[in-house]
Amino acid sequence: MDAQPGRSVTSKVLALLDAFTPASPALTLSELARRAELPLPTASRRVAELVAWGALERGDDGRYRIGLRLWEVGSLAPRGLGLRELALPTMEDLYEVTHENVQLAVRQDVELVFIERIAGRHAVPVLTRVGGRFALHATGVGLVLLAYAPAEVQEQVLAAPLERYTPLTITDPGRLRRGLAEVRRTGYAVSDRQVTMDALSVAAPICGPEGAVVAAISLVVAQHRADPVALAPLVQAAGRTISRSLGTPYGLPRSAG
Amino acid sequence: MDAQPGRSVTSKVLALLDAFTPASPALTLSELARRAELPLPTASRRVAELVAWGALERGDDGRYRIGLRLWEVGSLAPRGLGLRELALPTMEDLYEVTHENVQLAVRQDVELVFIERIAGRHAVPVLTRVGGRFALHATGVGLVLLAYAPAEVQEQVLAAPLERYTPLTITDPGRLRRGLAEVRRTGYAVSDRQVTMDALSVAAPICGPEGAVVAAISLVVAQHRADPVALAPLVQAAGRTISRSLGTPYGLPRSAG
Repeated sequence: MDAQPGRSVTSKVLALLDAFTPASPALTLSELARRAELPLPTASRRVAELVAWGALERGDDGRYRIGLRLWEVGSLAPRGLGLRELALPTMEDLYEVTHENVQLAVRQDVELVFIERIAGRHAVPVLTRVGGRFALHATGVGLVLLAYAPAEVQEQVLAAPLERYTPLTITDPGRLRRGLAEVRRTGYAVSDRQVTMDALSVAAPICGPEGAVVAAISLVVAQHRADPVALAPLVQAAGRTISRSLGTPYGLPRSAG
Repeated sequence: MDAQPGRSVTSKVLALLDAFTPASPALTLSELARRAELPLPTASRRVAELVAWGALERGDDGRYRIGLRLWEVGSLAPRGLGLRELALPTMEDLYEVTHENVQLAVRQDVELVFIERIAGRHAVPVLTRVGGRFALHATGVGLVLLAYAPAEVQEQVLAAPLERYTPLTITDPGRLRRGLAEVRRTGYAVSDRQVTMDALSVAAPICGPEGAVVAAISLVVAQHRADPVALAPLVQAAGRTISRSLGTPYGLPRSAG
């Protein structure tokens, strides 16, 4: 049943796309209808239109998946593949000189989205997935993105419960607030065993042409052999190189905090 | 004006997404309305809904661009990022041992879409862009994808004018047909200066679990130092490695030609 009968057709179509998640990338028609809160005949009609256009593809198993055409249109997002293409040479350089994990992320509302990741084969395992989301308060890239986010975003994150991933995750709002000030003071963030007990990440901001922080880059290394003070300049230099390729005239980010 | 007043709302929403191309990734509202063939008030309403969801983002310049949320949903396409994630380690190995350009592509209707590319910094320049399209009849990956495409796709391509990129592009349908038979016989394709006069590519198929060819991988090298017969086994081995990671039980693709 349509739980919100006043919804526009556009919102119903988008609700069908929302039904797909990294954990459920393949859905039957009835699963789709249920997740989008649409009556089956309505869902069936919209899904057929989405398949005809290529936004969805129907597999031999009868399940629907996100179609290549949607990936193709999505690849035009400047904050997705556009940023990735500009950042990749610098990320590869950072990988070549460290052989550690290199990550690139942007903020979407009160979470981060991983745009690219170079996973060191012999480096500490990382759980991140390109296109995947994560909370802002625990990872190095998240702390950078939060430190330079608009004040209302920071307040929203600080007001909500802060999920604990390890005993070292900062879940006290006051401590987190002081940590963010420190990130803005030093220009880099360190997440020391705050996501997993074996990893430490060092992250730095990437600025757009207007000087605002638009993304963050990090190195994720095995905690036991990590020296954040030695890694920070390396990551900061990479962040500045990418900022320059984005056309930023600023050396340092303008704080929004 | 709405050129097709009988169009469904879904198709109007999708027409707004269709308006964005690699050549025009940022559009004003009136450009969007014109390209989608929608009256301005209709376009304005739909665009506002797409912005609210995150499918589009409005820049400081007032132009609309594809939003990160659409990239995020698009990243769930198995034939896009899913394939790329499985293929990347093998593509990186191929790059490490050759330092040449490595490309990954899938077929979408009668064209190919580049899913990933590792560009050798000192290798011959390639024009391809991840998410970009190209004709099937000229590149190595295109010839592989066409050789194993369903017969109706082959006939459609052979019946249409075949664009000439260089004096060596095969534009004669009979010659192309014989070339495709040769690709199926040998299990690899060679495009020798058929796209640009300085490049040669060698491509091989990637098979899905059912044995059908689902993608193609290629090495693109400077033509003057290329030895296709030496490169072919390398590319074919990479194609088989990726096929295995896709779960294919077949050693060789089943021909659809």
